[in-house]
Amino acid sequence: MVYIELVGMLAVLQFFFFGFLTGMARGKSGVKAPAVAGDEGFERIYRVQANTMEMLVAFLPALFIAGKHWPPIAVSILGLVYLIGRVIYWRAYIANPDKRRIGFMLSMLPTLALIIMAILGAVFVI
Amino acid sequence: MVYIELVGMLAVLQFFFFGFLTGMARGKSGVKAPAVAGDEGFERIYRVQANTMEMLVAFLPALFIAGKHWPPIAVSILGLVYLIGRVIYWRAYIANPDKRRIGFMLSMLPTLALIIMAILGAVFVI
Amino acid sequence: MVYIELVGMLAVLQFFFFGFLTGMARGKSGVKAPAVAGDEGFERIYRVQANTMEMLVAFLPALFIAGKHWPPIAVSILGLVYLIGRVIYWRAYIANPDKRRIGFMLSMLPTLALIIMAILGAVFVI
Repeated sequence: MVYIELVGMLAVLQFFFFGFLTGMARGKSGVKAPAVAGDEGFERIYRVQANTMEMLVAFLPALFIAGKHWPPIAVSILGLVYLIGRVIYWRAYIANPDKRRIGFMLSMLPTLALIIMAILGAVFVI
Repeated sequence: MVYIELVGMLAVLQFFFFGFLTGMARGKSGVKAPAVAGDEGFERIYRVQANTMEMLVAFLPALFIAGKHWPPIAVSILGLVYLIGRVIYWRAYIANPDKRRIGFMLSMLPTLALIIMAILGAVFVI
Repeated sequence: MVYIELVGMLAVLQFFFFGFLTGMARGKSGVKAPAVAGDEGFERIYRVQANTMEMLVAFLPALFIAGKHWPPIAVSILGLVYLIGRVIYWRAYIANPDKRRIGFMLSMLPTLALIIMAILGAVFVI
């Protein structure tokens, strides 16, 4: 279970890192709180953070519940794909939002796999 | 506990489904990333997804902690009311945002009940 | 573990309270759904809620995993600092968004400490 905890916490740390970048971009862009729009560079990293949060809210519970029912190594590998997918998503989105699809898929598909594994794991126990 | 896991994962899957609809609406509406405004249809489903995330962040931990202290059947039924409430919220919001109140209440109130049950459960053990 | 559950659920309840204030501010400001901008007062409390959600998504899993590996009293105290930090953040942001830094730090730093404690806890077990 500790490998799964580690992957989960790295995903949280990665999300915090995107939040840090968003804060830096706010300072640099001059977009003053409470506004969250008005500068393309700020909006891009803000959307990376927001999209990562949308993923994380699904990824973390699916990771931990799948980890209770399936081999930790398989679950951890899917988690690593998610982490790499988010890095690719971030770099692509900053360069050109139209290129974000591959990184998105590389984090969305392992999350969807974990959700299905978690559901199957719970149902088979029932 | 597995019924509770199942309800929790169905809530995550439902949230992913709203995310999928938001992605579809983005393509159809022509609202280009990183923008998240400019088309009423896109904004409606985007707000359904965003509001569901706000609920989910509270619902999931409350569901699992309440499930440790209270009969799983009672906790699971509250979870099912939440799931149905979100479907009603979604359909109503898309049709007319002013009609979203009933669906909102049907997912907010069971979540609030689970939070209170989780707090009482923890306090009584103390 | 129950003290940690209690702190976690109080953080969820606090987030729900900010959501309630956001709903009240929407009614008062006349910002009609699906819009989330157009009134400074509404935008401020909405950003307090959104920023609290960004924190909560990291805080809760870090709290529970750190609580498995470290003394519950230390973990709970960090959680209490987070809760107080969010109150300060809220009051400061409503008064003047430029003054939000101290409250932000008082909730961000304990969350970061919990993430690092959770990672160290998992790695040492490995």
